[in-house]
Amino acid sequence: ALAQSAAEIFAHQALTGKHVLITAGPTREDIDPVRYITNHSSGKMGFSLAEAAAEAGAQVTLVCGPVHLPTPDRVKRVDVTSARDMLAACEAAMPCDVLIAAAAVADYRPEVSAAQKMKKDPNSADGMTLKLIRNPDILATIANRNDRPFSVGFAAETENLLAYATAKLRDKNLDLIVANDVANAAIGFNSDDNAITIIDRQQQQTSFPQTSKGKIARQLIDFIATHINKV
Amino acid sequence: ALAQSAAEIFAHQALTGKHVLITAGPTREDIDPVRYITNHSSGKMGFSLAEAAAEAGAQVTLVCGPVHLPTPDRVKRVDVTSARDMLAACEAAMPCDVLIAAAAVADYRPEVSAAQKMKKDPNSADGMTLKLIRNPDILATIANRNDRPFSVGFAAETENLLAYATAKLRDKNLDLIVANDVANAAIGFNSDDNAITIIDRQQQQTSFPQTSKGKIARQLIDFIATHINKV
Repeated sequence: ALAQSAAEIFAHQALTGKHVLITAGPTREDIDPVRYITNHSSGKMGFSLAEAAAEAGAQVTLVCGPVHLPTPDRVKRVDVTSARDMLAACEAAMPCDVLIAAAAVADYRPEVSAAQKMKKDPNSADGMTLKLIRNPDILATIANRNDRPFSVGFAAETENLLAYATAKLRDKNLDLIVANDVANAAIGFNSDDNAITIIDRQQQQTSFPQTSKGKIARQLIDFIATHINKV
Repeated sequence: ALAQSAAEIFAHQALTGKHVLITAGPTREDIDPVRYITNHSSGKMGFSLAEAAAEAGAQVTLVCGPVHLPTPDRVKRVDVTSARDMLAACEAAMPCDVLIAAAAVADYRPEVSAAQKMKKDPNSADGMTLKLIRNPDILATIANRNDRPFSVGFAAETENLLAYATAKLRDKNLDLIVANDVANAAIGFNSDDNAITIIDRQQQQTSFPQTSKGKIARQLIDFIATHINKV
């Protein structure tokens, strides 16, 4: 029992001395002062990862969009709203040893965010057209810096999961990608459980079956700690 | 003291025997299984009104979009997501004596809600165009039925508040409209306070200064009870 405890303590300090930057939750992109575009991310996975990384001895910065979650112990939390805010907060938190991008960042934002609430014409049944432009790619931006950290992305998809995940790993210059089937309500957005497949640069796949997001987070943090010590 | 209590009990039973239908919160309009359009409504004003109406002796049906609020005592709550869901739930709850439409219903929804998560082209920086179509107007639909209830709307505006409110009262065939300046953060979406101006069909204005949403709700319910007993 004593040997086991010592082993556990050792395993839990696998990230001592490392700065781990984690993004979590959705972003909100304003259409006008009242309306916005967002997504179903609850932030639970990113917050579980922040807690697990802190337990593993890391110094943790958690940059999060609007979520209803308490800050884990010994984690520095930075609250943001839009994708551009999130990128700026991540850049301000650099350098780091590991980036885990668990946030569901809006790919697009309205080209114009109206200063006043947009009025519909009460005498018209016409629709309207919302022009969207691309947001900056936070993960690719950080993963392509000269001082790039060990970079871990998430692929939350409803179809073709492993194909999309592998392409994203390559296109964004990542070290690992975590594939997450959000079409399955039991393990998707806002659920308490998750099941993941981790893919590395050699396209080797490691799967963790469905369990709590807290346990998945500890498994993933252990996996990352093993990988960075191999790099 | 005894006389005062009796007066209070009498005043609080001003809606005995009345069915009051209240809408609250935002609606969510899906872009795809991951993304959606919504707004900053917290539902607090509508929930406060449901509580005040129940305290005034009414039978209350509360149809609400996605909110993080507990259901008031003796209130029948119906949870919905989109504007179309909300209209269907309101029609199912008819007939009623009073409709108080406090929800911030999305005026528009995406013309197409994609069955799978929309993919951006990783090799393109192009934007995209989101076609939006008009949602049904819940308040106008109910207020123009043959069995129309006494109909109360809200105008949450960031500019030209009273002009917009008066036009909305007329266009939607309302009995009262409650004007609410959401540009003022102290009394707008997600705040605990409110300040309102009530406008009737004769364009008579009655203002209640800034106080808690609970107190504003009781003042508004008393005002409505007085008005329906005059009609």
